[in-house]
Amino acid sequence: MKIETVLISVYDKTGIVEFAGELARLGIKILSTGGTAALLQQNSIPVIKLEEYTNLPEILDGRVKTLCYKVFSGLLCKRDNEVHIRQLSEQGISFIDMVVVNLYPFEKMMKKKLSMDEMIEYIDIGGNSLLRASAKNYKFVLPVYSQDDYTTILNHLKKDGDVPFEYRQTLAQRTFFFTSYYDSLVAGYFSTQTEKTAYPGTKSLYLRKLQDLRYGENPHQGSGLYGIMNSPVLNYAQLHGKELSFNNIADFYSAANLMAELDRCFKKAGCVIIKHRNPCGAALGESTLTAYQKALQSDPVSAYGGIAAFNSDVDLKTAREINKRFYEIVIARRFQKEALKELRQKKNLRIIQIKDYGSFLKQDLVYNSYNNLVLVQDKDVKLYKKMIPITKAGIKVKEKEELLFGWVIAKYVKSNAIVLTKSLQLIGVGAGQTSRIDSVNIAIQKARNNKFKIKGSCLASDAFFPFDDCVKLASKKGIRAIIQPGGSIHDDDVIKTAERLKMPMIFTGMRHFYH
Amino acid sequence: MKIETVLISVYDKTGIVEFAGELARLGIKILSTGGTAALLQQNSIPVIKLEEYTNLPEILDGRVKTLCYKVFSGLLCKRDNEVHIRQLSEQGISFIDMVVVNLYPFEKMMKKKLSMDEMIEYIDIGGNSLLRASAKNYKFVLPVYSQDDYTTILNHLKKDGDVPFEYRQTLAQRTFFFTSYYDSLVAGYFSTQTEKTAYPGTKSLYLRKLQDLRYGENPHQGSGLYGIMNSPVLNYAQLHGKELSFNNIADFYSAANLMAELDRCFKKAGCVIIKHRNPCGAALGESTLTAYQKALQSDPVSAYGGIAAFNSDVDLKTAREINKRFYEIVIARRFQKEALKELRQKKNLRIIQIKDYGSFLKQDLVYNSYNNLVLVQDKDVKLYKKMIPITKAGIKVKEKEELLFGWVIAKYVKSNAIVLTKSLQLIGVGAGQTSRIDSVNIAIQKARNNKFKIKGSCLASDAFFPFDDCVKLASKKGIRAIIQPGGSIHDDDVIKTAERLKMPMIFTGMRHFYH
Repeated sequence: MKIETVLISVYDKTGIVEFAGELARLGIKILSTGGTAALLQQNSIPVIKLEEYTNLPEILDGRVKTLCYKVFSGLLCKRDNEVHIRQLSEQGISFIDMVVVNLYPFEKMMKKKLSMDEMIEYIDIGGNSLLRASAKNYKFVLPVYSQDDYTTILNHLKKDGDVPFEYRQTLAQRTFFFTSYYDSLVAGYFSTQTEKTAYPGTKSLYLRKLQDLRYGENPHQGSGLYGIMNSPVLNYAQLHGKELSFNNIADFYSAANLMAELDRCFKKAGCVIIKHRNPCGAALGESTLTAYQKALQSDPVSAYGGIAAFNSDVDLKTAREINKRFYEIVIARRFQKEALKELRQKKNLRIIQIKDYGSFLKQDLVYNSYNNLVLVQDKDVKLYKKMIPITKAGIKVKEKEELLFGWVIAKYVKSNAIVLTKSLQLIGVGAGQTSRIDSVNIAIQKARNNKFKIKGSCLASDAFFPFDDCVKLASKKGIRAIIQPGGSIHDDDVIKTAERLKMPMIFTGMRHFYH
Repeated sequence: MKIETVLISVYDKTGIVEFAGELARLGIKILSTGGTAALLQQNSIPVIKLEEYTNLPEILDGRVKTLCYKVFSGLLCKRDNEVHIRQLSEQGISFIDMVVVNLYPFEKMMKKKLSMDEMIEYIDIGGNSLLRASAKNYKFVLPVYSQDDYTTILNHLKKDGDVPFEYRQTLAQRTFFFTSYYDSLVAGYFSTQTEKTAYPGTKSLYLRKLQDLRYGENPHQGSGLYGIMNSPVLNYAQLHGKELSFNNIADFYSAANLMAELDRCFKKAGCVIIKHRNPCGAALGESTLTAYQKALQSDPVSAYGGIAAFNSDVDLKTAREINKRFYEIVIARRFQKEALKELRQKKNLRIIQIKDYGSFLKQDLVYNSYNNLVLVQDKDVKLYKKMIPITKAGIKVKEKEELLFGWVIAKYVKSNAIVLTKSLQLIGVGAGQTSRIDSVNIAIQKARNNKFKIKGSCLASDAFFPFDDCVKLASKKGIRAIIQPGGSIHDDDVIKTAERLKMPMIFTGMRHFYH
C-alpha cells in the first residue's frame, strides 16, 4: 500500500521534525494538529492543518480535535472494498494511510503527586481512537505510537515505498498491547482512588519478556523470564558468565533476599550459600574470607553447585578460595579488581553485583499461579513483632544476637524449618519436613555429619512447637537457647517444660512459613 | 448531574428494550444507531436516529457511525467549564449524558475458528471510543458497557434522578478495566498470529478477585485469591466447611494434582495425604477404606492437619475413620450420602468434590513472581520419556508398577526428593534436602520411625544420583529396585555399581525438580 497521507499529532515531540521532514521529502502529505503543526511549520515542513482539513475547530482545551467523521472514515475504509471506496468518494473523503500519535503521558504523570482532576486530563481519548482504528485497518494503515519506530519505517519507505506486511501486523499487535496497557494504568489509578487496597476486585499484570529461558524447572518445560511493567527494576548487574537459568533465578532470589536481611540486621561481613532454594551455608565473620570459610564449613557437600552471596567486598584471597570449588553463581556488593579477574577464569561462573541489597526487601506483592488460580500476597519482608524472653532463664546479649542470626536464616528455609547455629555460623538445617520434630532431628544429624558439636548451639524454628517434645530433645542434646514465634495451643506446656529445663527461649510473635 | 440525553448502540441487545423504555418514561431523550434504533422503534420507544442527529450517514459496513465531532464534543464537554459550554453552544451541540454501548464480542469469537480477516471485524472502534470518552468525563457522563448495570442505574434514576458520585467513579474504573481487557485480548490474538509461541515478547494477565483471604502464607501478610480471566475454570466444588485459606489452596492444589496423576496411571482406589505441600501419606488399595488406612499408616503424625484426597467414592466406613482424626480438607470424586452426613458433623472440615481430576493435568502456564520478575513455565504435566531397565537384573511387572507408583509421588515431593514404597504404599519420604544422600537417609529413617521394614521396598528419586553412594546405601538397606531419571556425568559409575549389586534400576529420561 502506497502511503500518501499521514496524520501527525504528538505530545512528545522528540524526533518528529526529522521524521516528518523525511516523510515530506518522500512526497507524503501531512495533516497535523495544534502544537505539532506549528512546530513542523516553523521547520518549513509543509503541513495541512487538521482544522482546515475537517473544517471543524479544535475545542474543549484540545479534548476534541481529531475525533471526527472525515478522519475516521479516511482511516477505516477498506481499500479493497468497492462499496467502501464508493461511499468515501460520495462523502468527498480521502484516505489517511498512517497515524503518528503518542498518547498523553499518563504513566509518567502517575509518579507526580497530581490531583485526580489533573490526572483525568492526561487520559488520551482521540489519540487512542486514532491508533486503534489504524491498527484494526492495519492492512492499509500504519499505527505509529512510538518514536522508536520512526527510523525503521523511514528505511522501509525509502527502500520500497511501503513497509512489509509482517511489520504492519506486528505494529498492529504492539498498538493494541500499548492501548491495553495504557487503559490498565488508568483503571489501576481509578482503583487506587476508589478501593484503597492492594487487593482490588480486578487486577492486571503486564509483562515484558526479558529473556527466553532454555527450559523451566525441568528440561521438558518451556519457559521465559518476564519483567512486570510499571514496576521498579531490581538493582543488580551480571558481570560475567552464561545467562541465568530458571532455577538459577529462583535460587538467586533466595540468596539475595537472605543476604539482604542479614545485612540489614548485622554490621558484619556475611556469606550465605543457597542450594535448591534452601540455605546450606551461612556465616558472619570479621572478614569476607572468614565469613566464606565458615559458610562453606556449614555443609561442604551441599554447597557443590550452589550460589554464594556476600554483602561485602570479595577480595583476591576469597576469590581464590571460591574458585577451588564449583558454584553456579557468586554474588557480592563489590568485587575487587584482582578478585574479579580471578573469578572470571571460570568461564561458566555467573558473577553478579548487588550494590543495593535494600531494594530486595521492598514491600511488594508476590504472585503464584495454580492453573487458572493466582494466589497474591504481600512479600514476607517483616522479621519479628517482638523479641521477648519467655522463660526466666537469662539470655545474654551474645545469645540474643545468635538467636536473631538463626531466626533470619530459618525464615529462608523451607517449612517446617529448624536451624542450628553457633558463633554466627549455620551448623545444621532441618528443611521441608511435614513434622517439626523430624526437622529438629535432621538439623542435629546434619550438624553431626559435618563434625559440629551440638552442645552450646542455638535453635531457631520458623513456626511454633506444637508440643514440648522439641524443647526436650533440644535440651537433651545440649542446645543453649531457642527462638520461635509461639502461638501453639500448647504454648503453656512448651514454656513449662522450657522453665523446668532452664532453657532460655524467645518468642517473636511472627511466623515465617515458606513452602 | 441530571441525565437528559443518552446514546444507545448495543451489539448484544439483551434487556435493552426494557432499559430504554424505562429511560424514555423518565423523560430521557434517546439517540440511537442502526439495529438498536430499529428495535427500540418497533417497541414504540421514541428514538432519534443518530444519522439524523449528526446529519452524517452510517458508512463502511458500520465501521463509522458514532465517530463524529458532534457526539464526542457532547460527551467530552466539562459542564462546569464556561469556555467549554460556550464553545459547545457556538457549534450548536448538546450534551450527551450517558452512553450505553456493548462492544463487538471479540472474546466470544476467539473461541470460534474464524479467519483473521473475520476476527478483525469484531474489533470495536467506535464503541470503545464512546466508552472511554464517557469514563474520562465520568463526573458528567455515565459509561454503561454491561447490561448487569441496567437495574442499578434505573433504581438510582427513579429514586434520585441521578446516580451517586461514587458509582460514577466505579463505573469509570470498570470501564477502563474493560477496554483494557478488551484490547489485551486483541493484542493476544494478534500475537498468536504473528509469534506462534507460548512465550511472546509481551504478555498480560487479567485477574478477577474470587475471595479476600484472611492472610497469606503467614498472618502478617495480606492476601487475595484471584482467577485468571479468559481461562477455563477448574472443576471442583466445596460442599462444606470454612473458606479455604492461602495455605489450604496451595496444599489443595498439590493434593489434587498428585491424586489426578495417580488416578491416570492406576485403575485402583487411591488416597494421598498432603502436608505443607509434601505428600506424607499415599496408597492404592482394593477399596477406599484400605487405601485410606494404608495412606494414613505412611506417617500418622505428619497427617495431623493435612489434606486427604481420594479418587473414588468415600463411603460411611471411610468417613468414620477420617473423622477420628483432624484434617483441614477432604477431597473426593464422590461422597456417599451417609458419608457426607458423617463428615459434615465436623463444622470446620472443608469437603471438596472433584469430579474431573483430568482437568488438573491440563497443559498450562505457571507464573511465579520474584519482586518485579516473573518466571513463566509450562506446567510439569509430563511423567516420563521412557521406562527402561538400565541394569541386567530383571524387573518383574509388579516391581515396575511399584516403581511407577513411587515415581509419581516423588514428582510431588520437594527436591531433592527420595520416596520409598512397598505394596503400593508410601513408607518413607526424604524431602527438601540440599544433598541427595541426606534425602535417602531421611526417607529410610522416616520409614523406620513408622515401623516399616526397608527390606523389599522400592526407591524413587526425582533427579539423578550424582554419585553411586545412594545405590550402595539402598542396596545395603535391602531396597529391591530403583527408579530415577539418569543423566548424571557419573551415570556409568552408578550403573556399574548397580550391576555389581544386582540392583534393578529404571531410567525415565525425565527429571522432576519441584522446589
